[in-house]
Amino acid sequence: MESNVNIGVIGYGYWGPNLVRSFSEISGAKVRTVSDFNPKLLARVQARYPAIQVTTDCQDIFEDPKIDAVAIATPVSTHFDLALAALKAGKHVMVEKPMTVTSEQALRLIDEADRRNRVLLVDHTFVYTGAVRKMHELVSSGELGDILYYDSVRVNLGLFQHDINVLWDLAVHDLSIMSYILQSKPCAVSATGISHVPGGLENIAYLTLFFENNLIAHVHVNWLAPVKVRRTLIGGSQKMIVFDDLEPSEKIKVYDRGITINGDAESVYRMLVGYRTGDMWAPQLDMTEALRTEGLHFLRCIEHGERPITGGDAGLQVVKILEAATESMKKQGQLVELDTVEVAA
Amino acid sequence: MESNVNIGVIGYGYWGPNLVRSFSEISGAKVRTVSDFNPKLLARVQARYPAIQVTTDCQDIFEDPKIDAVAIATPVSTHFDLALAALKAGKHVMVEKPMTVTSEQALRLIDEADRRNRVLLVDHTFVYTGAVRKMHELVSSGELGDILYYDSVRVNLGLFQHDINVLWDLAVHDLSIMSYILQSKPCAVSATGISHVPGGLENIAYLTLFFENNLIAHVHVNWLAPVKVRRTLIGGSQKMIVFDDLEPSEKIKVYDRGITINGDAESVYRMLVGYRTGDMWAPQLDMTEALRTEGLHFLRCIEHGERPITGGDAGLQVVKILEAATESMKKQGQLVELDTVEVAA
Amino acid sequence: MESNVNIGVIGYGYWGPNLVRSFSEISGAKVRTVSDFNPKLLARVQARYPAIQVTTDCQDIFEDPKIDAVAIATPVSTHFDLALAALKAGKHVMVEKPMTVTSEQALRLIDEADRRNRVLLVDHTFVYTGAVRKMHELVSSGELGDILYYDSVRVNLGLFQHDINVLWDLAVHDLSIMSYILQSKPCAVSATGISHVPGGLENIAYLTLFFENNLIAHVHVNWLAPVKVRRTLIGGSQKMIVFDDLEPSEKIKVYDRGITINGDAESVYRMLVGYRTGDMWAPQLDMTEALRTEGLHFLRCIEHGERPITGGDAGLQVVKILEAATESMKKQGQLVELDTVEVAA
Amino acid sequence: MESNVNIGVIGYGYWGPNLVRSFSEISGAKVRTVSDFNPKLLARVQARYPAIQVTTDCQDIFEDPKIDAVAIATPVSTHFDLALAALKAGKHVMVEKPMTVTSEQALRLIDEADRRNRVLLVDHTFVYTGAVRKMHELVSSGELGDILYYDSVRVNLGLFQHDINVLWDLAVHDLSIMSYILQSKPCAVSATGISHVPGGLENIAYLTLFFENNLIAHVHVNWLAPVKVRRTLIGGSQKMIVFDDLEPSEKIKVYDRGITINGDAESVYRMLVGYRTGDMWAPQLDMTEALRTEGLHFLRCIEHGERPITGGDAGLQVVKILEAATESMKKQGQLVELDTVEVAA
Repeated sequence: MESNVNIGVIGYGYWGPNLVRSFSEISGAKVRTVSDFNPKLLARVQARYPAIQVTTDCQDIFEDPKIDAVAIATPVSTHFDLALAALKAGKHVMVEKPMTVTSEQALRLIDEADRRNRVLLVDHTFVYTGAVRKMHELVSSGELGDILYYDSVRVNLGLFQHDINVLWDLAVHDLSIMSYILQSKPCAVSATGISHVPGGLENIAYLTLFFENNLIAHVHVNWLAPVKVRRTLIGGSQKMIVFDDLEPSEKIKVYDRGITINGDAESVYRMLVGYRTGDMWAPQLDMTEALRTEGLHFLRCIEHGERPITGGDAGLQVVKILEAATESMKKQGQLVELDTVEVAA
Repeated sequence: MESNVNIGVIGYGYWGPNLVRSFSEISGAKVRTVSDFNPKLLARVQARYPAIQVTTDCQDIFEDPKIDAVAIATPVSTHFDLALAALKAGKHVMVEKPMTVTSEQALRLIDEADRRNRVLLVDHTFVYTGAVRKMHELVSSGELGDILYYDSVRVNLGLFQHDINVLWDLAVHDLSIMSYILQSKPCAVSATGISHVPGGLENIAYLTLFFENNLIAHVHVNWLAPVKVRRTLIGGSQKMIVFDDLEPSEKIKVYDRGITINGDAESVYRMLVGYRTGDMWAPQLDMTEALRTEGLHFLRCIEHGERPITGGDAGLQVVKILEAATESMKKQGQLVELDTVEVAA
Repeated sequence: MESNVNIGVIGYGYWGPNLVRSFSEISGAKVRTVSDFNPKLLARVQARYPAIQVTTDCQDIFEDPKIDAVAIATPVSTHFDLALAALKAGKHVMVEKPMTVTSEQALRLIDEADRRNRVLLVDHTFVYTGAVRKMHELVSSGELGDILYYDSVRVNLGLFQHDINVLWDLAVHDLSIMSYILQSKPCAVSATGISHVPGGLENIAYLTLFFENNLIAHVHVNWLAPVKVRRTLIGGSQKMIVFDDLEPSEKIKVYDRGITINGDAESVYRMLVGYRTGDMWAPQLDMTEALRTEGLHFLRCIEHGERPITGGDAGLQVVKILEAATESMKKQGQLVELDTVEVAA
Repeated sequence: MESNVNIGVIGYGYWGPNLVRSFSEISGAKVRTVSDFNPKLLARVQARYPAIQVTTDCQDIFEDPKIDAVAIATPVSTHFDLALAALKAGKHVMVEKPMTVTSEQALRLIDEADRRNRVLLVDHTFVYTGAVRKMHELVSSGELGDILYYDSVRVNLGLFQHDINVLWDLAVHDLSIMSYILQSKPCAVSATGISHVPGGLENIAYLTLFFENNLIAHVHVNWLAPVKVRRTLIGGSQKMIVFDDLEPSEKIKVYDRGITINGDAESVYRMLVGYRTGDMWAPQLDMTEALRTEGLHFLRCIEHGERPITGGDAGLQVVKILEAATESMKKQGQLVELDTVEVAA
């Protein structure tokens, strides 16, 4: 390709190095500048990528007319200001998850991107893995039947974050996966949790999502578990999925199991439940690194003016649920309804 | 022992055969009579144990002066009437879990047993396993430090019960274990769930228990899961336990892992969280069958007038939580407080 | 069926009780007599099965004209004499594995059964499991392609036998499975092993079997392993199987993996090896207890004069390999050829 | 440290990039030059490490007086010539495993290094992992008791090598671990194997090692397995180890299991075997990358004139066993004795 998309990356802490490495390996993209407050981190950039410019002032990125797109990998509380500035400077934006601290901020960014006709992609990385794309395919094709539940356990001895609770840190992954896979949206949530650090944020949380149809979802997150678990069950009326992200190769298993329900002619009060058990099947998955798939998708959206599959609307939906869940958690499980007014596509 | 304890077993469906077999193998106990409505089931008793009397009328058991104790393994809705009749007939009672349908019924049975000075044991079988007794020992000895959470996942493609929801069927196990292991009692619950059978009882449920101290518990049950999971995490401030009941031998693993929290002198707003990781240790467990240990305990309580470790008070606590959880589930997670007035010991 | 097959069981030690229980549950069979040297074991039979006759003298079984078939579950060294006496008394015979101590003995039994037109079934129990039958089906159908290797690890902290080494105790299972599944027979073996008990029999052994075509087999057995492993790999040119007998449900996994080999036109010295990786599939298995399937097969052979699928010839093949392997093991791996003269079918 | 050790790396194919990266991250070491025949691979070096010199002629490395040490990561057949040239040029040498193609070559390199007083380290990387160092500690301390067996399974769908068979590719890891952990040396081997590629090298092999004392070892390697297994059992008279290198954290498990053997006073022919089962314990392991530990060790040996723990003698022992095993494999398991004359330390 003749013309590269020039990218500025803001933030070189935990995730930024992955973005820089990944974009560096994609032909058609070129990381032009990296900014971070911390000069030590910038020294690492220079040692490893001598051709990349570094700066402690992200304004340099916004003001550089050669930069087409900005990737933002900073703490959540800064996402809104940085993304808005980038959009106002006419840049396409890829922003880490969670998209923003509030849904108002998310709506404002969506609006700004729309008005300026810029791509706004939220980095819901999991959506670009082979495993999640395979689950999307299985659900969309109808092979699972009606989806009855989504149930995820995501626990480990994890870094205690100081600015966000465990829902915003870990449940965000499941919410982004659900937003991609499930064809309906939750209408209310109930959440419970606890903080074991005096004055700290919740480090264990349990989130139930209610949907209008016969579907329920639950997410179970914990920073204080002795073992790492990453297991999601998706129950369908025809088949069921177990997604174990710690399995090195067989991450997705599809079980031909379930129940069949028949009305009982003799009694309106009794349902007959029958059980089906059959084969299990583990489809081979595309092992391309998710960040590569996502980076290529970002470039394609920029070049062809397409909407990203994890655009501002997906980011907004996740933030709305996290807001509602945090509110419910403060009230020890009290139901919090989600307005289901959609952003016009 | 010269004299046997003569036992009558009511109900020979799913669990009754285990009780009959187990008591038959204990010297000092003798199963004298088995009753069941279903003559076909009684024919099985006769084929296998020609020396045991059978009857379709459980009154025969209550009226037999040679019977010292009655074991009740019938549907939950019948527990109260049968146990009350047995106590009134002067028999010691072992009753399946959940003890009763309501906490009022449970209180009534406790009262009756106390007044008549009879043993009332609730068959919280798990409490008598080597694994749960080892966890009790680890918690009681203080080796885990302060208990921070109890978290259990108990799911499989299970029999859909027609008379009780999945909490009463599966969560009852965790509640009985908690009642034995944890030194404090929950003060409130929040539960959510769903029924996938039209007009049926909930087949998936999520239950959070709040305690007065820095402790939270969560129980996760599902009759419609493609795989069987039986995993409990107990987090302590010093060590943590993973209890996987499906492991053939290493059911209990103790992890020397956790966090250390230090106040930060420079800022009251920041806590310093440090991480500890160390060895893991899987203690050897007593592999005696739980029903045997429990049967021997029942006999000893009868002979020496001791209070069972799973007596009426434990049964009552479990029923109270199940009542409250079912109420919360109907209200989609709304908090339901548990009165903490204790039964006088 | 009007008329039962009356069975005499000789030996009520480790395996005999399973045979008695299993035949008792099969309609069409009736255990008439059990013999054992040990009166205590016979007392157990009487307590559990009052209708079964017991005797310390197995002659009573041979001389009872009402007994049609004899099942022999005694130490290996006694198999030959007992089976021969039973055949001479006109009984059909089911004998534990290994069939005999020597291949001469096995041939003699085959001959006796043939001349008297009696059924002689060797209790290669694994052959009657759903897992092994499924593997047989997959191999026979050609779905795996050409079979390239059979590789089994069968280790645990097991009972040290005093009369047979670990090959005769554990490898016998794999040899019986191979004899059923593989369409060719080994032509030579090399075995190594060690005894850790002074003057004792080998408690660890490694056995390689060579075949005429492009196939190799290896069996790895150990009575002194800290963990139990039961894993067999079967490599085919098209697909491969992993059989893990400790998995509760997914015992058989079929992998669409392998290599493709192409001649390289430019060089006779180079082969091009390509790799294929694809889906994995775990077929549902028939969970009928193997002993039940085997018992029904034994009855059918008796009634219809059919040859059992684990007849004397299969038993003989296994004994011949065990003899050769033991000889090779004494010579620290030296090749021992197997004559491939077949028993006339 | 004032003065860096300047390193030349020969070969930038599979392993060379790891050496370059690892030495680049060690203070006290400096990669000065990388050589490879392939200019494309050198371009990668330049892109990533602009300060490193590159050359297609390894003579440039030997002739550079500023280079102190040479790391050789080329095909096995070239190890001898390159290592000899490096030693003759006065360089310290770190050479990939297997050290050489023949034991004569290995002896010649040991001799050259000794005469010139240069460090000769063989890159037995596993020896520098936390897991293997822990096993060494457990064996050396006597905690396991007498070592009874070493048993390793190392199989996967692996790259078919064109210049070395599967023993030289995979068993080399186990032989290097054994050479470090076990206090005695094997005196003879028996090996079997097969090639599934016409005219190719063996892709499945089974190797038994005999020792003079009551110890046996077995290594089981396969390039054509559908699943990856990396499991080693080490049996001691007191305790036993399971080393599973695919476990993310609990790689080493120590089992308090075994047998106790007592002479039987009444019979010289009978030994009494008792079984012990006890706790399992998974010690925390040092997670430092092995190459870093090894690189630091190499520097220390250079600076202080110490002998490396994986020096030429360890490399020689491994090559001798591989030679003998390959010979035995050609003869279908025939015993090949190893001379046990030691290299003078």
